[in-house]
Amino acid sequence: MAASTVPDIVIGRLPLYLRALTMMSEAGQEYTSSHELGQQLGIGSAQIRKDLSHFGEFGKQGTGYEVNFLKEQLAKILKVDRDWPVALVGFGDLGQAIAHYGGFAAKGFHIQAIFDNDPAKIGQEVNGKQVQDIARLSEIIRQQQIKIAIIAVPAFAAQAVADQLVEAGVKAILNYAPITLKVPEGVRVQYIDPVVHLQWMAYYLE
Amino acid sequence: MAASTVPDIVIGRLPLYLRALTMMSEAGQEYTSSHELGQQLGIGSAQIRKDLSHFGEFGKQGTGYEVNFLKEQLAKILKVDRDWPVALVGFGDLGQAIAHYGGFAAKGFHIQAIFDNDPAKIGQEVNGKQVQDIARLSEIIRQQQIKIAIIAVPAFAAQAVADQLVEAGVKAILNYAPITLKVPEGVRVQYIDPVVHLQWMAYYLE
Repeated sequence: MAASTVPDIVIGRLPLYLRALTMMSEAGQEYTSSHELGQQLGIGSAQIRKDLSHFGEFGKQGTGYEVNFLKEQLAKILKVDRDWPVALVGFGDLGQAIAHYGGFAAKGFHIQAIFDNDPAKIGQEVNGKQVQDIARLSEIIRQQQIKIAIIAVPAFAAQAVADQLVEAGVKAILNYAPITLKVPEGVRVQYIDPVVHLQWMAYYLE
Repeated sequence: MAASTVPDIVIGRLPLYLRALTMMSEAGQEYTSSHELGQQLGIGSAQIRKDLSHFGEFGKQGTGYEVNFLKEQLAKILKVDRDWPVALVGFGDLGQAIAHYGGFAAKGFHIQAIFDNDPAKIGQEVNGKQVQDIARLSEIIRQQQIKIAIIAVPAFAAQAVADQLVEAGVKAILNYAPITLKVPEGVRVQYIDPVVHLQWMAYYLE
């Protein structure tokens, strides 16, 4: 389990395996195979076996993988066998949809703190959490030792928010603002921009 | 411009270049360089020059790239120099945030039709479009010749929606449901699942 030697692209596929295994588990399925996982995910079965082999020997010749066992192992490898507190910055349409999204529960994350700079939004309550004044961002993130944040503010404000988050100790940022962020080494950023995906696919349209 | 010979991963970077150039253009900047683009995007300048060289010669030694010219060329290459009608399926929290999102305008897309199966939502109006009964999905998509769709329904319903979309002629699907879709060859799917990104980054947290 020499973490540093596993290619990042392999790590990026593990959440997909975990997602598929979780659905199998919820459906009561006990065993699966790299072939079945591959069919569901559109990934070659050899690739799946090779990806998993970075972390150990999880399957048995003949019976394949035990769904719950492999699911638990992957959750542990991805460090989502715990519950990470996440800060959400921005409580506009998108931020509200993210705050209401039920899909984080049991996936390793929960929205622990929400920030906005709009007085009309500060104090609103979502799932028992009050929207906080963004002026308190550093203080609250430090105090609650939050390491993960979601940025859902307009593009022009995103870099300043990222700078504050990093300064307060955040190490992983999921950025919905349509702008590439500059962060110091040791901080990870991933991006969600629907326009990028749509334009990518538009290229192939007739 | 032999479209089929350009690696898909190169196509995937063009929207990022276009996004950066659009911001430069809006800021009134006239020229840029692969070096500056690379700095902004965290991509090597040699990579950028190589990516662009698949499509022609856009820069000049010494002066670099003319921002508006390169922006227009990339928009043309990506086929987003026009305005694609997009169908949005699902008008829950997420679908509503997508429908209200202002970021599609001038990026090549507009939400042309919205569908849901909830009688309380059907008939609601967003930006002058009424939410339609999902029973009319095939009819409307065929009639309006919509080729691009966004799926924002729960995971359990997503495959059935995708099947209907494909059958009605949709060729590109942006899927927000946390499930891998099966589609026939010739149809593209891209995925947005925040949990996948968060889990990917969680791996690297201490």
